[in-house]
Amino acid sequence: MMFRSPIKHCRNCGTTVVYRIPDDGDTRERAVCPACDTIHYENPLPVVGTVPHWGDQVLLCKRNIEPRWGKWTLPAGFMELGETTEQGAARETDEEAGALFEMQGLITVMSVPRVGQVHLFYRAKLLSEAFNPGHETIEARLFTEDEIPWEEIAFRTVKETLHRYFEDRRKGRFEVHAFDIV
Amino acid sequence: MMFRSPIKHCRNCGTTVVYRIPDDGDTRERAVCPACDTIHYENPLPVVGTVPHWGDQVLLCKRNIEPRWGKWTLPAGFMELGETTEQGAARETDEEAGALFEMQGLITVMSVPRVGQVHLFYRAKLLSEAFNPGHETIEARLFTEDEIPWEEIAFRTVKETLHRYFEDRRKGRFEVHAFDIV
Repeated sequence: MMFRSPIKHCRNCGTTVVYRIPDDGDTRERAVCPACDTIHYENPLPVVGTVPHWGDQVLLCKRNIEPRWGKWTLPAGFMELGETTEQGAARETDEEAGALFEMQGLITVMSVPRVGQVHLFYRAKLLSEAFNPGHETIEARLFTEDEIPWEEIAFRTVKETLHRYFEDRRKGRFEVHAFDIV
Repeated sequence: MMFRSPIKHCRNCGTTVVYRIPDDGDTRERAVCPACDTIHYENPLPVVGTVPHWGDQVLLCKRNIEPRWGKWTLPAGFMELGETTEQGAARETDEEAGALFEMQGLITVMSVPRVGQVHLFYRAKLLSEAFNPGHETIEARLFTEDEIPWEEIAFRTVKETLHRYFEDRRKGRFEVHAFDIV
């Protein structure tokens, strides 16, 4: 859904771009239009999600989409223009799990430079055990820490966030964990 | 440097795009190519920076670029592909202030939905009082909290981050502050 194909043509006029360092003091190669001088920047993207929890259980979603079809994940997706990270995380939780919940604090901030992403996860307190997952989810289910299928978790960001959540829960104090997935 | 002009042509083949909701279950209008079916996504961008500090002073940079030419700011800029948020924040500090420093913890995570950005600031401990600002900076200078020209600060994200930094410093305990600039 978010694979970015290489920029071959100018977004403004359609001319074939050239890759070079712009003359404005920049230090990186960009796709530059030789006709209208438009400079095309490509930057990392924010991904936002939640750890929905109910008592000592957390909600995981079985992916109905590639990549990692059939693996378990937390509700998360690309942040959209016009929303905050928290609103984006809530939207994804609604779309993928169809859960009733209340947003809580930020728990992880993770850079994933290999894919050009920054992931931010919030805790979300579930208000009901009834889920209505969207088309991207095969099944939404609650797991205790011991029940989590650790070998079947779709992404390392999800695994690391779940570990931080359960660790903080044991300590009785939640904080923001900032680290990199390299 | 990062104004994004509207997408008028396909990045892949140069054809004029149409704005519509793609047929893949998406719920938002995207620039879609009627010739090669490329879907063009536009998402918020991460901005990364630091609060460089020296004793009870912080380093501010007087902007030599628009917007807000001549106003004071913290070193910050758009995160680049291939780097982590912390690496990006360090790079911007090096480029804009030319300071010797050591990176420390994350201090603010701010959504700015009006401009489609997420700002992340880290503390950075200065290791010297010698600065060598780049072309984007007129002057780099240390200020105590009382000396800061609050009315001449370029952005609200910078003002809010400075307030959090000095508050935490007084408390003797730094934490991550996540909030929105709306």
